[in-house]
Amino acid sequence: MKHEPIGPGRFAKALAAFRDALGEEAVIADRSGLDDFRDPFAPPTGDWYEPGAVLQPGSVEQVQAVLRIANEHSVPVWTNGQGRNNGYGGAAPRVSGSFVLNLRRMNTVLEVNEESAYALVEPGVRFFDLYDHLRAIGSKLWMSVPDLGWGSIIGNTLDHGVGYTPMGDHMNSQCGMEVVLANGDVLRTGLGGLTASKGWHVYKYGCGPAIDGLFSQSNYGVVTKMGVQLMPAPDCYMPGWLQLKKDSDLELLLEKLRPLMMDGTIPNQPMIINNVCGMSAFTQRDAWYTGEGPLPPAILEQISQQPMLGAWVMRFALYGDERIVERQREIVEAAFGTIPGSQVSFSKYDGHNLPELDNPHERVQAGIPSMALDQMTRWYGGEKGGHIGFSSATPITAVDGAAIRDLVRKELNGAGLDYSGVFIVGKRNMIHVGLVVFDTEDAAQTEAAYSACKAMVKSAARQGYGEYRSHLDFMDLVADQYDFNNHAQRRFHEKIKDALDPNGILSPGKQGIWPEGYR
Amino acid sequence: MKHEPIGPGRFAKALAAFRDALGEEAVIADRSGLDDFRDPFAPPTGDWYEPGAVLQPGSVEQVQAVLRIANEHSVPVWTNGQGRNNGYGGAAPRVSGSFVLNLRRMNTVLEVNEESAYALVEPGVRFFDLYDHLRAIGSKLWMSVPDLGWGSIIGNTLDHGVGYTPMGDHMNSQCGMEVVLANGDVLRTGLGGLTASKGWHVYKYGCGPAIDGLFSQSNYGVVTKMGVQLMPAPDCYMPGWLQLKKDSDLELLLEKLRPLMMDGTIPNQPMIINNVCGMSAFTQRDAWYTGEGPLPPAILEQISQQPMLGAWVMRFALYGDERIVERQREIVEAAFGTIPGSQVSFSKYDGHNLPELDNPHERVQAGIPSMALDQMTRWYGGEKGGHIGFSSATPITAVDGAAIRDLVRKELNGAGLDYSGVFIVGKRNMIHVGLVVFDTEDAAQTEAAYSACKAMVKSAARQGYGEYRSHLDFMDLVADQYDFNNHAQRRFHEKIKDALDPNGILSPGKQGIWPEGYR
Repeated sequence: MKHEPIGPGRFAKALAAFRDALGEEAVIADRSGLDDFRDPFAPPTGDWYEPGAVLQPGSVEQVQAVLRIANEHSVPVWTNGQGRNNGYGGAAPRVSGSFVLNLRRMNTVLEVNEESAYALVEPGVRFFDLYDHLRAIGSKLWMSVPDLGWGSIIGNTLDHGVGYTPMGDHMNSQCGMEVVLANGDVLRTGLGGLTASKGWHVYKYGCGPAIDGLFSQSNYGVVTKMGVQLMPAPDCYMPGWLQLKKDSDLELLLEKLRPLMMDGTIPNQPMIINNVCGMSAFTQRDAWYTGEGPLPPAILEQISQQPMLGAWVMRFALYGDERIVERQREIVEAAFGTIPGSQVSFSKYDGHNLPELDNPHERVQAGIPSMALDQMTRWYGGEKGGHIGFSSATPITAVDGAAIRDLVRKELNGAGLDYSGVFIVGKRNMIHVGLVVFDTEDAAQTEAAYSACKAMVKSAARQGYGEYRSHLDFMDLVADQYDFNNHAQRRFHEKIKDALDPNGILSPGKQGIWPEGYR
Repeated sequence: MKHEPIGPGRFAKALAAFRDALGEEAVIADRSGLDDFRDPFAPPTGDWYEPGAVLQPGSVEQVQAVLRIANEHSVPVWTNGQGRNNGYGGAAPRVSGSFVLNLRRMNTVLEVNEESAYALVEPGVRFFDLYDHLRAIGSKLWMSVPDLGWGSIIGNTLDHGVGYTPMGDHMNSQCGMEVVLANGDVLRTGLGGLTASKGWHVYKYGCGPAIDGLFSQSNYGVVTKMGVQLMPAPDCYMPGWLQLKKDSDLELLLEKLRPLMMDGTIPNQPMIINNVCGMSAFTQRDAWYTGEGPLPPAILEQISQQPMLGAWVMRFALYGDERIVERQREIVEAAFGTIPGSQVSFSKYDGHNLPELDNPHERVQAGIPSMALDQMTRWYGGEKGGHIGFSSATPITAVDGAAIRDLVRKELNGAGLDYSGVFIVGKRNMIHVGLVVFDTEDAAQTEAAYSACKAMVKSAARQGYGEYRSHLDFMDLVADQYDFNNHAQRRFHEKIKDALDPNGILSPGKQGIWPEGYR
């Protein structure tokens, strides 16, 4: 059955039903109230992705009520935890006029298990909230956080977000979900299927298919609880920096880094940051240059020469027994010492008695949430600066690193934009994030940024590199690139979607997955 | 539509069509040829799980042909790689008379990537085959193997099997699948969705839902290719043994072991082995005792006192830089040294120049496949010995370890059987495998073994412990225990099943998942 656009009559009836079920305070429909749920970096002109109203249920039962009403009235709901995924569209829905199902009010840390080192959280729990909770109860456990701490832990995890401790692959560090399906049924994954389960948050697979991944980057259910693995504080915490002089040193580094990642010598997720990106954490562009077009080579060189910067710098950290950490430091120094002109430096802390850390990079690698790096979006536009992410996954090799760097730089420079980029390095892969930064009040620059991003998606795919995440505005385009066997992945996603959500109410269009009525 | 039992007419027509499509040599239907595809440890009397015929396609196209014909004739196919999963039913199908879709002929190692350390294999590739291939091409990479090396790597992984190197969580060490769905469509997961993909076997998630887990322990598709992560040979390989005097030392050990697992001091998957299980690798029971009923305490004590045994012994290993490994050894010795009467011992090898290792435990922890531990099934029955596995996942704590040990021992001893058990310890959980060993020619003992296993499934679930795998004969019973919200997991599994396989041809009953026509 073809989906009918949501007319004002249907919208009003559904809105009234939601108000009845959730109470007035849980429904936001006035224009100013909706501002926090728009794409914060939307272009200044033209139609964009507009929330119709916002629903903020306070319990699993209220989530079930929302889905029941959405099915009855055939209106789409667009789910998020906090809705702070700003480089990818924030809380805004793919289908304008959707009800945003925002879970900020479900913000309880339900359990902390000190022995097996995990927490059970609701989707409104921010990284800040869990951190505060752990400190308040005197827990000795560390958590993993992304660069900005204001997001939902569940939301970030489900979008395959990353952090920078040894548990930084957040999807891999989750264990055990509770999910409300589109039909209102409440499912627990893995060993959570046992009513009396003792292993829900320590063993991932249960018996039968492992289904947790199905609820990540999808529109197949609303995750209402999730187990988050934590780690005991290490005896020794040693954050390090590697500064590289030349752009091409990136390639030398990647070949040295790969074996150190694979064997765990470096156990966290290092971030390799280019000159512009590094500097954008501290200053705006006009402190360096006020001309048009990308920064000239001489200015880039000047930025690279600033203290603690370089053509590239890598932040990383070591954790554990002091003697093991000291030996890892020697191995790392020996490996990176072969890169001409490079500099390695470390700080060293007692993990059980951390001092107040000033450097946000040292904080984030110790799992302490922060908002310091939010500055980066102000490169061009000050308070009105924005960014979108171009985020590709590749092997950790010189060839792949150079290829994706050159591709992104060429497209950005071609659009008149500076190349601001990082590589986030995992055990077996790395993600290159091109931070496409622009002034949201500059229509031409914003338009150029979006166009450049879309061009990169296509040229990267032709070279074999796929996006791991995407902004609302090019979710379809990204899905289009996954073309093996005439888009077998899309056919599969659609088949599951139709089976689980026959009325197509849950987040239509998320990651290019459209319910039958919209196709 | 209700599934009709496969009558001889329908069977014969389907068989003829399979012969036409695959060729005579790829279809086994004679009684003696089928012997290798029966449950090797079936009870001596009564109906059991009988293969109708065996299909051995040699290519993805032939797998597609098999599924097309199965759909046309509405006959079930039961998939396995090698079909060597002997403690759980071997190659035998859940529904007697099914066509066994056995993938032994698809046995090519398609790629070894030395740089990013992975292999791409077909489902007929055994652990032995990949090992031989790696040595033949001069690869420096190590693999992970389970105790018996004759199984399919893909089959073992999909059944959530484990190995004993740092990559021993096989499902976690897989990256990127190709799957033939019931309708014949060929899907590649993750970044494999990009036709030109460079990251298929290094990055797990792709863009959109992470679906790989869906094809494990399920009947949703036939996996025809899979990426297997390997590891560079470590500078130093140090297998270790810990011997514990008393049964209750298990509890002391678990509390010492948990933090060492969580922080990676012990990076592989240790196995804690009880006295009977340890001895069964070397001798049969009648060398110790010929009486009825479980071994008396004095005999158990005598076995515990044999060289390299104990009430419990733990095998484990350290890998990497020699100085780090030496420090890990000190930490391990200090931790375990607090357990009265315990003994820790180590061997030490150059990982780049391993000698011929005689001890099968040292081999398996270096990823060298072996069949040495197959001896264990001969405890009672000699050549006709068999076993079934009772396999529960729990947290790594003294309380949980004691509870599951006591539960299994009580049921086994109550059935007149010896308690033979191991704990396989992961980073955050452990699996207690009760090795339920019996003489397959002794009808009463075999019957007692199956009954005890089923009783354990139920009493473990009541205490909150779930099976992670199960024999054909109690797949339904295990699925029954996953009862949260009136069996929401089962409803979910069935919904996916019906969407992907509307005719119910793929492995009906696998892990308690039945197609609509059989429910």
